[in-house]
Parts: sequence; structure tokens; C-alpha cells
Amino acid sequence: MNQPLALDGARPSLRRIPLENISTVAGPAIGDPSIIPLWFGEGDLATPAFVGEAMARAIQAGHTFYTFQNGVPELRQTLADYLTGLNARPIGADRITVTGGGMVAIMLSVQLIAEAGDNIIVIDPVWPNIAGMTQLVGAEARSVRMDLGPGGWTLDLDKVAAAMDARTRAVIFASPANPTGAMIPIETQAALLDMCRARGVWIVADEVYNRLVFGRRSAPSILDHADPEDRVLVVNSFSKSWAMTGWRLGWLTHPPSLGPTLAMMTQYTTTGVTTALQHAGVAAVREGEPFVAQVRDYCEAGVNLAQDALERFVRVRVGPRPAAGMYVMFEVDGMPDSREACLSILRQTRVGLAPGYFFGPGSNSFLRLCACRAPAVLTEALSRLEAALS
Amino acid sequence: MNQPLALDGARPSLRRIPLENISTVAGPAIGDPSIIPLWFGEGDLATPAFVGEAMARAIQAGHTFYTFQNGVPELRQTLADYLTGLNARPIGADRITVTGGGMVAIMLSVQLIAEAGDNIIVIDPVWPNIAGMTQLVGAEARSVRMDLGPGGWTLDLDKVAAAMDARTRAVIFASPANPTGAMIPIETQAALLDMCRARGVWIVADEVYNRLVFGRRSAPSILDHADPEDRVLVVNSFSKSWAMTGWRLGWLTHPPSLGPTLAMMTQYTTTGVTTALQHAGVAAVREGEPFVAQVRDYCEAGVNLAQDALERFVRVRVGPRPAAGMYVMFEVDGMPDSREACLSILRQTRVGLAPGYFFGPGSNSFLRLCACRAPAVLTEALSRLEAALS
Repeated sequence: MNQPLALDGARPSLRRIPLENISTVAGPAIGDPSIIPLWFGEGDLATPAFVGEAMARAIQAGHTFYTFQNGVPELRQTLADYLTGLNARPIGADRITVTGGGMVAIMLSVQLIAEAGDNIIVIDPVWPNIAGMTQLVGAEARSVRMDLGPGGWTLDLDKVAAAMDARTRAVIFASPANPTGAMIPIETQAALLDMCRARGVWIVADEVYNRLVFGRRSAPSILDHADPEDRVLVVNSFSKSWAMTGWRLGWLTHPPSLGPTLAMMTQYTTTGVTTALQHAGVAAVREGEPFVAQVRDYCEAGVNLAQDALERFVRVRVGPRPAAGMYVMFEVDGMPDSREACLSILRQTRVGLAPGYFFGPGSNSFLRLCACRAPAVLTEALSRLEAALS
Repeated sequence: MNQPLALDGARPSLRRIPLENISTVAGPAIGDPSIIPLWFGEGDLATPAFVGEAMARAIQAGHTFYTFQNGVPELRQTLADYLTGLNARPIGADRITVTGGGMVAIMLSVQLIAEAGDNIIVIDPVWPNIAGMTQLVGAEARSVRMDLGPGGWTLDLDKVAAAMDARTRAVIFASPANPTGAMIPIETQAALLDMCRARGVWIVADEVYNRLVFGRRSAPSILDHADPEDRVLVVNSFSKSWAMTGWRLGWLTHPPSLGPTLAMMTQYTTTGVTTALQHAGVAAVREGEPFVAQVRDYCEAGVNLAQDALERFVRVRVGPRPAAGMYVMFEVDGMPDSREACLSILRQTRVGLAPGYFFGPGSNSFLRLCACRAPAVLTEALSRLEAALS
């Protein structure tokens, strides 16, 4: 894979990080109306109007000044109450730090834990930014791949243990995973927690897709098992459940004792999150449950539509039917290199897909399709793909 | 100075960074209506209504999705045109990366340049976050203090040269400086650029206060001298000139060739800036010139009011009269420790000041007062201070 690297003048460790990501593959095709863009982790549902109205009201009310680095107290309390209602154990507001999206929550987590010489175990297939951020601090992202069997994707904890060494600082997983939709059963998460406790290793759980579980209220959460002062960080975001990708709002759930450290790190990186946006976040959580259910059902319909179609395509092998998330993963006979496959399919069909090689070392033969789309758009995309892949 | 440090479980290098900053000194007093808060780098002017209206329109127009990592093209072009109009040399849109405030621009700059073992020369007195971010990546922030003489603050380039070694990766300065308002003359900036060119060292110029120069359109900029591909990064922000502290919008001006690297780093840290906010930024720049002039005049009036009053106080030695910015710096006889002084003054007068020790190793005897305030509020604060400090 021919990936350009960062330029001269940058620090040496940065120059080893590939510049290429889904955006650069999409490149000049972004915004081209002839293309059906199913490459990004983003649906086509607009943010509900009441969120924007809450933002406008907050601006008018004068919330245009700096606020607390851990977040506006009202939003921290609202999120704590929300998590307490969602999970088995109560969460206090002192465990919430508001972030500029799930990515900033991952950034803070990695900056908190790891430095050059350390390694972080990344359970994949998983979206590329976790490994990217790990490399950005000069640490090693060590891949442990979930196994794909007849029953779906499973995590083998022996493989995790075998990958650990004295410089392992964290295990990071996404459950439900992007791109597979796979969920790690709570018993496995609890066993992983025991293993990490024994070694003083952190767990970072990306639960950004926790509300997009088909037919269920939410995914099993490590927060059901972790004690408040366990070395557990949970990343979440408004992007997927509330259709707020372009707003950059998320949060990190953390041990209460880490609040001041995360405030300091926030001070020296982002200085915090847009104040009025945090008030909009309060409205999203308090009034958004019907919308979250709508997003979930919309994703389920899209995923099933795409899965059903792809299963019929002669040259296509689809992964197991996802029970969560917004993606379908598949391989195409005769197209073992996902980057080439995506570019070729884009040329032939004007459908944008994400190449699997971004999602882990073992995933190069897979393509990812985002199915959080209006049925008519998705049907058109699948019909174009059928012509090319059958 | 008794400063708590980050907690166990964090990486070792992080545990050396003090948790204390202006916010933690302000601490529980934030929001107390009996206190006149002059501690933060923030005025009391609300953001002009047209910016909020532009944001609301952008949300209604559906700008709620992810956008380009270097920023919305319209804002990049608007900022390039703005800088071209402000400075002596044209700036292309390919040299602009939009960031979540000036702080994120500094974060990207430091992450681009430095890693553990490197050092960055920080010209002070200067706001603490530049050194904080440098320490966050494990690099050393090496202080070179400007000299305070009868003619004001001056930078001695011999001191900069003497502080450099083989691991020096950058010189960072703010001009106009926070807190002194001091500007580095363009001849000195040009000589510093020559020195840095010869050594392959970066210059990072924080120009966040460049429009708050009393009686002038803008401060001298390194962009007037640097070639596009020089190792020069210029940090700017909407916070001060457009009274948008709580919005988190800024930008970095950089060599064109660094665009893809900065996009990659943005992808793995913040994923970019709130899309609708970038459209509000276009409105701020295009329609905001009368407001910027108003902020500048308001700061000038406040700074002069505070400077005049403090010069009369028996126990106070005020710094040279600032020609830019929004601060007045002063020392109090018998109060050599700025942290203790701030806490004692807060107790006695209910006026919040920032302690000098945050602004560099040689600044512990100074206090910083933010004078971007309505005259009545500032008069009341100064009258309270007079009772305690005369």
C-alpha cells in the first residue's frame, strides 16, 4: 500500500505515520453529486431541529464565554444521570469529562496513559483512529484481532494476554465495534477487567455505538462491572446516537480521582468544549430518546437491506449479520486489496466504500459500507454494486 | 508553590506536570457574584449577535455533518483573504488549517515538532499553556525571558541563541504578548527568523492579540517576512478580537506542504472543528471589522484606566504602559509570592487576579489584571484594590 508519509520538518516519530485515511481516499470525490458516499462513519439523518434550537437559545442567553474544563456542570450531571439510567451501576457527575467528540476522549485517554516506548493493545477490526492516536504519542498500537467463526466475531482473551508485556499500558476495544458491529459479551469484558486489574493495565472502551443495538436499549457496558476507581475509561459521543457528527461533542467516563488531571490536559490541548454546544447536549440527552430509537431502527433497516442484497451477489462474501452499528462488511472475490478495490469500485459504480486495511492488519480484504441511509439511496447504491460485483 | 500533580496510573512524564492553572486558583470562586473576576484572558463583551445568527442559519441549512479536516474551504479562503489584507505578503488558502481555538493550533504545532528529549524555547512572560502543551508531549519548555527596561520589554536574541542546543526544535513567542502586551519589533522577528532558518528550528508565533493594538490596525507579523515554505507556524484565534472565547475557533497558518500532515493529525486528535461554527467564523471575519475595532478601543480604555489607577497606588509598581492586549501587570510591595498575593487579595477585596508565576520562571512577583471590562466594573474593582494596596 503506497501511503504518503508526513513531511520533512516534522518530528521523526511523526514521519512514520501514514497520511492516508478514509478522507484522503475519498479525496477529490467528496461532495461530487454523482457519487453515493457510503465511506464515512456517518448517516444521512440530519441532527434533530430541537438540538439546533437549544444551541441558538444558549447563544442568545449569552453562553459565549469560557467554561469549566471538565464541562458545563449541567451537562456532566445530565450525562451521569443518563448513564445511571442506562447501566447497572450509578455514575456520578465527577466521573464525566465533556470532550470535543469521541475522538478527543480517545486523545485524552491515550495522552493520559501512554508515551514513547509503551504499547497499547488495540482489539480489531476497529476504526483506524485509535491506532492513529496511539502512534501520534509515539507508542506502539499492538493489534489483537477478533476471530471470525460461524457464530460471529469473538475475542480470545488468551491472545490478549499473549500480546501483553511489561510496557503494555492499555487494552482498547470498541463494543459494539466499528466496523463489524460485534459486541464483546459482558462476561468476556469482566474477565478482561480482571486480567487488566492484575497487571495494572488500563481498559479504554469505545462505546460510541452503544445505543445502536438492534432491538435492544443498549449494549453491555464495562461500567456495569468496573468500580469507580478501576483503571477504566469509557469513550462516548453524540455523533452516532444523536446524529451529531459535525458538532464535535462527546464525553469520557473516568475514575473520579482523574478529574483534575483531565482538566489540566484539556486546558493544554483544547481548553474545553464550545460552551453553548454543551447546553445543546443537555437538550439532546433529555429530549432525544425518541430520536435515538429512530436512528437505531433506521440503521437496523439499512444494515439488513444491505446485508440481504450483498448475500445475493455472486462474487461477494458478507460477514455475519450485524446486531448493532451502521455498517456491513464484505469481501469480493478477485479483489484481495481493499484500497485498490475501493478505488476500482468507485470508478465503476460511483459508490464510495471504506477500505478494510484501515481497520487492522488482518482486514485488508474487507470493504465497509455505511448503511445508515435512506432506503432509496441504499437501494440505488446496491443496485450499482450488483452490476459490478455479481 | 504547593502544586498537586497528576495522579497514579497516568504515564510517568505526565505526573510531573502541575495540575494548577488559573482556573484551579479561581476554583470554587468561579461564578460567585460577589467576586469581580479579572483573572481569565477574557473580556466581558458578548459575542456580536450576527455571529450567533450565522451559526443558527448554518445549522438550519444542514451543516451538521463532518467536514474537511483542514477546515471548511469557504472559511480557509476567507481567512487567507483576511491575512492577505492585513499583512504585506499574500497568504493562500492552502496555508490555513482551521482549529478548535488558538490552543488547538498550539497543540498541533507542538505535536508536529517536538517529542520527548526535544526542547522548545518559550519567550516569556507568556501565558502558561504553551509550556504546558510542550510538557504534555514530554519535551522541555526552556524559558528565555524578555528584559524589562526603561523602554519596555525587549527580546535579547543572544539569550535565545545561548539557550539553543542540538535538541532545540522551536522558538515560540506571543506578540503582542499575553500578559505584557509587548510586541517584538519586526526587525527582531526577521533576525530571529534568520537565526532559526540557519539551524532548521521552527518559529511558532502566537498572534492571538494581533488586532488589539492600540491606535493601529494590527501588530507586526512574522508572515510579512517568512516565505511560504519557511518553518514558521502562526497561531490565531477568534477568541479575543471577535469576543468568542467560549466558541473554540482559531486557525494555524503553515507552509502549504504541511496541509496533509495537519489533516492527519487533526483526524487523530479532534477530527476537526464544528462545521456550523466554521460558517459562523466566515460571518465573523467578513462582517466583524467594526466590532474588532470596538473591542480594541474597549481594551485600550480599560488598560489605560487600570494603568492610571495602579500607578497611584502606594504599594504597587506597575509595568510599562501596554500598547496592546487586554492586561495590566503589576507588583505589590511585601507580596513577593504571586499565588499567595492573589489568594490574599481575593479574600480581602473579592477581586480575582491571575498570579504571575504561571507566566514564566521570572514572573512570580507579578499579578495580571484583565482590563477588558466595562468602565464601571473596572472602577469598582480598582477602588477595592486601592483600599488593600495603598
